[in-house]
Amino acid sequence: MGEASKIWTAALVVIGDEILSGRTQDKNVGQLATWLNDQGIRLAEVRIVPDDQPRIVAAVNALRPVHDYLFTTGGIGPTHDDITVDAIAAAFAVPVVVHPAARAILKDYYRGRSGGLNEARLRMARVPEGAELLPNPSSGAPGVKIANVYILAGVPHIAASMLEALTGTLEGGRPVVSITIGARAAESEVADLLRETEAAHPGVAIGSYPFFKDGRYGANFVIRSDDAALAKECGDALMTGLRDAGYEPVAGGI
Amino acid sequence: MGEASKIWTAALVVIGDEILSGRTQDKNVGQLATWLNDQGIRLAEVRIVPDDQPRIVAAVNALRPVHDYLFTTGGIGPTHDDITVDAIAAAFAVPVVVHPAARAILKDYYRGRSGGLNEARLRMARVPEGAELLPNPSSGAPGVKIANVYILAGVPHIAASMLEALTGTLEGGRPVVSITIGARAAESEVADLLRETEAAHPGVAIGSYPFFKDGRYGANFVIRSDDAALAKECGDALMTGLRDAGYEPVAGGI
Repeated sequence: MGEASKIWTAALVVIGDEILSGRTQDKNVGQLATWLNDQGIRLAEVRIVPDDQPRIVAAVNALRPVHDYLFTTGGIGPTHDDITVDAIAAAFAVPVVVHPAARAILKDYYRGRSGGLNEARLRMARVPEGAELLPNPSSGAPGVKIANVYILAGVPHIAASMLEALTGTLEGGRPVVSITIGARAAESEVADLLRETEAAHPGVAIGSYPFFKDGRYGANFVIRSDDAALAKECGDALMTGLRDAGYEPVAGGI
Repeated sequence: MGEASKIWTAALVVIGDEILSGRTQDKNVGQLATWLNDQGIRLAEVRIVPDDQPRIVAAVNALRPVHDYLFTTGGIGPTHDDITVDAIAAAFAVPVVVHPAARAILKDYYRGRSGGLNEARLRMARVPEGAELLPNPSSGAPGVKIANVYILAGVPHIAASMLEALTGTLEGGRPVVSITIGARAAESEVADLLRETEAAHPGVAIGSYPFFKDGRYGANFVIRSDDAALAKECGDALMTGLRDAGYEPVAGGI
């Protein structure tokens, strides 16, 4: 298993009535999860909460002490329902202040645009006292970082560009390696094999994801570990086990 | 505002490493939210947790006492990573038992199928003691209900069919009505109008969702209330306000 290594974890608080009402399909969970994997950090929990300060504060304060990093998405725009900064400030019991550099970024961004830097847009320069800014390569308003909390935009392509800008700046562990093996097996017929293979390889997790494709049942088995050699060994064992049971394994999945 | 009415709420615990690893895009949040709206119940919080019993138990026991209903999706299949029933039983401090009717359903479902009702498949007849079954119109394994907790499948089309079968069986309040109005306005230019319109109509919430479409900025404003007359009144006021500010409102959104 190699040397024992710290497992770095992150949590995400998705802030938005639009997700909880079913109006908008969240895309930030998936893209943050994928990005975190590359940083060697595991997404360990997500909470989706409404645009309601006490609910945001409760989620943030439950999660930030128990994870290395906490991300939030949503609620950092210019309108009355954008209350994330106020909620995070309340969570840290600090006042909200206008960040001079954020104001300068917004002043520059809205120069020459209709309406200029009006009061609503200036809201986006407000940060919890003591916070730093995070670069926003897509649009004017910067993200915000306070302690281990990273406040990102809710619009997925803007959040993605903020993550892109953060790449490589967070301390993490070994990236999680995942190996997918598919087979035209009903998962209920190979359940014992999966359980035994996982048990024989401490440090890996095997997930089983059934599907119905081209008129036939099957499943993909996903082996995950932060130890690449161990994942490969477990994958080879599973391939052998599937063959022995009469199924043709497909490396990479079906 | 009409008579004060109880607001019925539900929470959802999504159980699945595959969502937290970014492998699978969740679709159950959106479809449960939409279905709950029609039942007059608000989806008030979602937690996405890994396939880990203590984490599932913690989420379930935090949410079930504070909401009218708690739903779970995922982890009710036949493999070793399907631990939802065990976790819910632990949350209620009851043993896991084989439900005779579930066993009969599975026996029938797997009759003549390769492997028959083997031990792995029989796992899907296990329920927390005292639980009832929920119909599964799509595949063999039934859902499970214990107290106010509804245990659904993770595969979205199976979860959808279980919800379909539950339609009309849960007590709720008035369905939430939503009215969408679009405008080619930067939301930062109408932020005051939105805040004032919302403040003038207690009992409604206005959400603002900016977009960039056909080369131009704009936003959709979503008015939500369980009082249809009030929502309409607020929508009319917003239309008037937008016109007065020089924007052409588009009923139904852009």
